[in-house]
Amino acid sequence: MTITAAQGFRAAGVTAGLKPSGKSDVALVVNDGPSDVAAAVFTTNRCKANPVLWSEQVLEGGKAKAVVLNSGGANCYTGPEGFQTTHASAELVAQKLGIGAIDVVVCSTGLIGEQLRSDKLMSGITEAAAGLSGTGGLAAAEAIMTTDTRSKEALREGGGWCVGGMAKGAGMLAPALATMLVVVTTDAQVDSETADRALRAATRATFDRLDSDGCMSTNDTVLLMCSGASGVTPDEAELTTRLTEVCHDLAQQLLGDAEGADHDIAIEVVNAATEDDAVEVGRSIARSNLFKTAVFGKDPNWGRILASVGTTNAVFEPGALDVAFNGVWICRDGQPGESRDKVDLTERAVNVVVDLKAGTEKATIWTNDLTHAYVHENSAYST
Amino acid sequence: MTITAAQGFRAAGVTAGLKPSGKSDVALVVNDGPSDVAAAVFTTNRCKANPVLWSEQVLEGGKAKAVVLNSGGANCYTGPEGFQTTHASAELVAQKLGIGAIDVVVCSTGLIGEQLRSDKLMSGITEAAAGLSGTGGLAAAEAIMTTDTRSKEALREGGGWCVGGMAKGAGMLAPALATMLVVVTTDAQVDSETADRALRAATRATFDRLDSDGCMSTNDTVLLMCSGASGVTPDEAELTTRLTEVCHDLAQQLLGDAEGADHDIAIEVVNAATEDDAVEVGRSIARSNLFKTAVFGKDPNWGRILASVGTTNAVFEPGALDVAFNGVWICRDGQPGESRDKVDLTERAVNVVVDLKAGTEKATIWTNDLTHAYVHENSAYST
Repeated sequence: MTITAAQGFRAAGVTAGLKPSGKSDVALVVNDGPSDVAAAVFTTNRCKANPVLWSEQVLEGGKAKAVVLNSGGANCYTGPEGFQTTHASAELVAQKLGIGAIDVVVCSTGLIGEQLRSDKLMSGITEAAAGLSGTGGLAAAEAIMTTDTRSKEALREGGGWCVGGMAKGAGMLAPALATMLVVVTTDAQVDSETADRALRAATRATFDRLDSDGCMSTNDTVLLMCSGASGVTPDEAELTTRLTEVCHDLAQQLLGDAEGADHDIAIEVVNAATEDDAVEVGRSIARSNLFKTAVFGKDPNWGRILASVGTTNAVFEPGALDVAFNGVWICRDGQPGESRDKVDLTERAVNVVVDLKAGTEKATIWTNDLTHAYVHENSAYST
Repeated sequence: MTITAAQGFRAAGVTAGLKPSGKSDVALVVNDGPSDVAAAVFTTNRCKANPVLWSEQVLEGGKAKAVVLNSGGANCYTGPEGFQTTHASAELVAQKLGIGAIDVVVCSTGLIGEQLRSDKLMSGITEAAAGLSGTGGLAAAEAIMTTDTRSKEALREGGGWCVGGMAKGAGMLAPALATMLVVVTTDAQVDSETADRALRAATRATFDRLDSDGCMSTNDTVLLMCSGASGVTPDEAELTTRLTEVCHDLAQQLLGDAEGADHDIAIEVVNAATEDDAVEVGRSIARSNLFKTAVFGKDPNWGRILASVGTTNAVFEPGALDVAFNGVWICRDGQPGESRDKVDLTERAVNVVVDLKAGTEKATIWTNDLTHAYVHENSAYST
């Protein structure tokens, strides 16, 4: 019970038959108010899926009353027919709930380049609308899973209001958002502008710094809905903090369940001239297949890290770089430092620190290793 | 007999004991003139190996009389001690040949972050200098191999002059050059400025468009040496054409021997607004792990191609993109086109065409698929 832990929300998850596995695949989340304030962040990919094209219009007014989500198909690169399916989904939800279609956000996930079975989706929506409940959060979280091995939920509460969230995503995780769908609910009283600022601040430091496999999705959506049902109006800093905590929790769950990964890697770039420099350096390392395969092989290969750092425009001196793996500074001043034999990479969690010695800013990028299982899962996914 | 096919060149390849395998690991190539014109292109990585830092100084004058190359260690991130090893290599070659150290280019390849065994390297140089011969090209080409499974040589001749080349490189192949060492010789009479322009034109359309694994090396060097021994002075266009042919041939050999690859993929981006757009789009696809694993799985996953195209700043309309795999247009106007069942990806060679419908420019980027063997080889390489 997480997205429905917030007062004013009902949810459902049902099986419409979109997934060959026969698992649940349509989720509906409704905000019963009194407020319908909402904010969202979408993929920056220029080739956007139909549900993103639709939902961007919905959010223009800073309001939304419901979100319908499906797994079993991304409805991406499916042309006018696909857009019609998205539109019909919103229309049907609106009709069932007595609201307008323009109040309904639509999210889809699954294979791209294939039409969704509209008939099945509509049946699922009808069933989901009939099954909405104040305890439907988990069912909704399960219905949006694709290659996820477990559902992902998070909750932070206190002071009479709460923030709950659910997420899916296991591949195409990068770089501004993952291939992920995230719905965050709160019963706090929040105005549209504050909701938008708080959500952007929260995603900037969490989902935006998750870069599992360097591939940017076409369907990424993070939606925040605010019911106001608690009657509490937190200040913006409190809201942002709690939202960031929920987004961080969900992002770590995405990282921990990334397709085929053996290691969760935190790349901390410290003493950078600017935060942007730190992010650029961290991301360059997170995208090095040679670094990622080395971690899979439990090899603290700092040379591959320096080779990645060298491709960036960040401020640093090549001969001054330090690198630590799990606390062991195996590279000092661009040369071998402590013995690599001291580094133990058998645990799933790996911490890499890169000291640029160029300032006081820092940032952490999270990524995964590149494994046989990743190759297997992604070479076999559509076949 | 390739680099020594050009008149005026001698070469040798010997075993110095730098490689645990006991295979040959030191090569020496000497230009006996009459001309000592040379040009080179180096990695653009800011974290450069010691031999690159040295060789950049050598090439400042547009001349070089010899190049000594070793496998078994990249001499990169090895600090002042490593630079001293590079310098001592050049000094010893110079002493043996009666030339100046500043006439001697140095190239190294192998693991980074470890000191080269200077004593072994010096012994190898002494032996190589004693064994120089006009038929030593193949021995030199073999001595620079690392994870290469075969030596790489190319030759174009006619009109009384020729261009020969040798290359090594099998991983870290990108983006402006691969992890590769290339030596190209010609007995044509060429001045320094022409040599430099011709080499840059040739590498720009060949090695610079090879992007096997997205990782930029610290040691990349392409060296052209011109002896003038044929007495023939080709015009610049002829020289550039022949050089480009040799570089293309070597680049294709690098592609065909990339670590763990099952497929060689040519990504042709056509009808781009600018050549830069075409290169940016092609490179974005070449760096998509999801696309590369799909090809390994013989899956013509055009959705992953569009998702990559969408991350670029090139001019295009998402709803107008066409994609073909091996001649089958499975995506038309951003939607499913011909049946994917018509595409056969069992052969090693894969041709992808992306039509941006935004202009008349084009470019081809070459890459490989992402395979279990790639992960295995690169997770185990240093251990």
